[in-house]
Amino acid sequence: MIKLYNTMTRRKEIFKPREGNKIKMFVCGPTVYDHSHIGHARTYISFDVIVRYLKYSGFTVFYLQNITDLDDKILKRAEELGSSPLELARRYEEKYLQDMKVLGVENVNFYARATEHIPEIINQIKILVEKGFAYETDKGVYFDESKFKDFGKLSNRNLEELNVHRIGPDTSKRNPGDFALWKKRKIESDELEMVWDSPWGTGRPGWHIEDTAITDTYFGPQYDIHGGGLDLIFPHHEAEIAQMEAASGKNPMVKYWMHTGFLNVKGEKMSKSLGNFITINDLLQEYSPDIFRFFVLSTHYRSPIDFSQEILQQSQQGLQRIYKLIETINELLDENTSISMDNDQEYIYKLSEIRKEFFEAMDNDFNTPSAFSTIFDIIREVNRDINDSNISKNALTKLKALIIEFGIVLGFDFSLKNKNEPERQEDLIELLKDVRNKLREKKEWDLSDEIRSKLKEMDIVLEDKST
Amino acid sequence: MIKLYNTMTRRKEIFKPREGNKIKMFVCGPTVYDHSHIGHARTYISFDVIVRYLKYSGFTVFYLQNITDLDDKILKRAEELGSSPLELARRYEEKYLQDMKVLGVENVNFYARATEHIPEIINQIKILVEKGFAYETDKGVYFDESKFKDFGKLSNRNLEELNVHRIGPDTSKRNPGDFALWKKRKIESDELEMVWDSPWGTGRPGWHIEDTAITDTYFGPQYDIHGGGLDLIFPHHEAEIAQMEAASGKNPMVKYWMHTGFLNVKGEKMSKSLGNFITINDLLQEYSPDIFRFFVLSTHYRSPIDFSQEILQQSQQGLQRIYKLIETINELLDENTSISMDNDQEYIYKLSEIRKEFFEAMDNDFNTPSAFSTIFDIIREVNRDINDSNISKNALTKLKALIIEFGIVLGFDFSLKNKNEPERQEDLIELLKDVRNKLREKKEWDLSDEIRSKLKEMDIVLEDKST
Repeated sequence: MIKLYNTMTRRKEIFKPREGNKIKMFVCGPTVYDHSHIGHARTYISFDVIVRYLKYSGFTVFYLQNITDLDDKILKRAEELGSSPLELARRYEEKYLQDMKVLGVENVNFYARATEHIPEIINQIKILVEKGFAYETDKGVYFDESKFKDFGKLSNRNLEELNVHRIGPDTSKRNPGDFALWKKRKIESDELEMVWDSPWGTGRPGWHIEDTAITDTYFGPQYDIHGGGLDLIFPHHEAEIAQMEAASGKNPMVKYWMHTGFLNVKGEKMSKSLGNFITINDLLQEYSPDIFRFFVLSTHYRSPIDFSQEILQQSQQGLQRIYKLIETINELLDENTSISMDNDQEYIYKLSEIRKEFFEAMDNDFNTPSAFSTIFDIIREVNRDINDSNISKNALTKLKALIIEFGIVLGFDFSLKNKNEPERQEDLIELLKDVRNKLREKKEWDLSDEIRSKLKEMDIVLEDKST
Repeated sequence: MIKLYNTMTRRKEIFKPREGNKIKMFVCGPTVYDHSHIGHARTYISFDVIVRYLKYSGFTVFYLQNITDLDDKILKRAEELGSSPLELARRYEEKYLQDMKVLGVENVNFYARATEHIPEIINQIKILVEKGFAYETDKGVYFDESKFKDFGKLSNRNLEELNVHRIGPDTSKRNPGDFALWKKRKIESDELEMVWDSPWGTGRPGWHIEDTAITDTYFGPQYDIHGGGLDLIFPHHEAEIAQMEAASGKNPMVKYWMHTGFLNVKGEKMSKSLGNFITINDLLQEYSPDIFRFFVLSTHYRSPIDFSQEILQQSQQGLQRIYKLIETINELLDENTSISMDNDQEYIYKLSEIRKEFFEAMDNDFNTPSAFSTIFDIIREVNRDINDSNISKNALTKLKALIIEFGIVLGFDFSLKNKNEPERQEDLIELLKDVRNKLREKKEWDLSDEIRSKLKEMDIVLEDKST
């Protein structure tokens, strides 16, 4: 039984999809105007593990993400770089998908581009205008926040509180918090790209409408889970609720709202202006994807997480302890020596308890740090018993299987099978070079030349420093 | 500009999705009651390449497949094996997904299980009853073929022709061709599994209704492409059209119907009773997935294809010629010798022509055999020029890039990068063993022991026959 924290109700609830064991889940995708950063990586790895666990628990998940490929940021950046906005968006979209693949984020079923849902967006705006929730001005079409009584229910603020935070009065709007559904093209400007015809003239959609147009298309007006970063609750997710519930008349749009905490860099917010902006590219120059995944999962997905070299190195060490244990187990299983069976029954029981604890931690709002600590508890114990030669091959085999299973749930390959292959190949080549050098010292030219030519057949060319 | 053959209009049409460049495509998935066979593999590899090419041509494809997990065949087989029908279905579903993964079929966005869409199925049947297209009897709910004027439009037969082929009069039905939407549980029987409550009592859906309930859920009542094997046109796809167009009042349900030809084994239909039934498992014992993919794509997807050892061996040879060329190019590029540049301009032009021909072939209803012949044309020519040392490194590099690009479109990895790694490792180990044996003959114990112990560190244990 999975319990998850619902931002809407501000408490943990027993998870039950709207229909049978089918889950329809949407997570806000990136605006593709620049390289993705480690904050994105944190969010998408967190939801990747959540989806992995939901599937592992027997649910079917339709995981949908949007790709924001028509934002003002894209236009601005395209102008800076002197490229076409759409080409720029496609380039960064591809980069994003590559980054996700490298990070092992692979459970999204469909990526829906905003630019490919303009008719659906226009249709939703039309409905909102017809129902009186939206109005047209010289500048565009706006959602009238005063018409939607539930406005603010997710962030738990009333209209007055909400409006205090809005900057600058826009005289064309009825209320300060009204937000754009459609932005009309400025007549004086020379915008020729990323504009579409609509009943309100040429222009482009506002920031919030693509998500609800997309979810309505693939899920209908009501679905199970909506996820995203904490910073999206207000105004973005409030606006989504207003748009969809007003348009459909159905309530609630989403049964469970899930939000990931902030990622800070050495205690500070990550931002370009602070100069502490770290892209996924930057990250992967220094650390492997599994170290970063371990780092992300060492903190609960809703808590803030602090990125620093020290913590990443701790993550590396933590992960290394797991790999090391599997290596040790493999070695022990390969050896012919028999090891004590004294505490075998005890271990079988202990492992089933560990498994229970692991899944209890995951059931408890996907508490990955707590799931990891069950792994480290057993590692400590097993290492001691290995040192005392006090654990059987049977228990070791079962432990290995258990850790591999935990890896599957969390997105790690603890089987170590393919992992070592490229490394091993390097080691084999090194050994051959070494042997060959020793043969050359001994003036065993026949054999050393044979090694050289056989390696050449494998496209491995040895360069001799001096002959 | 892609032209594709539409079974509905019986001619090639210029392909244009219903909306922008978004394609909604549905292909009938398997009934998961047994291992998938090579006929399935042919169909799904064909659609895999079609989707790859559509994506390569700039379209976005939402590729949906159903999983039939509630069929009578599943119940029968579960009874034979003494297992639970749902567990059996899940097991064969997993096997199917593994088979597809091994075959490189990886473009399906979402697999929708019939058992997880019972409310949608019941809802669609309700609409059909309400609109007068379906009626209830003692045995179930039937679609009344006489009420749907377009019945037979896909297979191009009229009702009389259609009904000639129906076996046995069922007195509870109004017309011989009426088909079941809901099958009531037999009172006398002890069926307890795979039955659901409905407005027409406990029972299960008929054969055809899951597909339209599923496509309506994710695509709405109208979408772009529906694919499947040729044998599904009648009655299955006719029934789908009747259900969806009658329920929605919208027409046509599908813009383009695509059907793959039959796969025969040595000229005969493949069937369990003929003993020539080949599963994907069986296949992969003998041939690698890329050889089978090459075999499938060597025939046009709509033509019948004949499976025999001889043809598979020809496929292996064909594929080998491509791999061999890439290997040769890699060797030539590694060499320091310079090769003639005389015909460089000519080659650059020729390669751009080849690329054009390849994509023209693919644009022409995905004519993969014709696309392959462009590859073999250039291979013949290049091999001749390589023998005459009459081709530049520049041309070879461009040719290699071109063939890798073709491979991406068709689902082959012609880059040969990872391909050789495990093989190479084997080769390295063999070389070390060989060197060590020679050292032992020479009684060079130090070095031979060093090789042995270093290999052991890499978990590679050498067994000496005699010491």
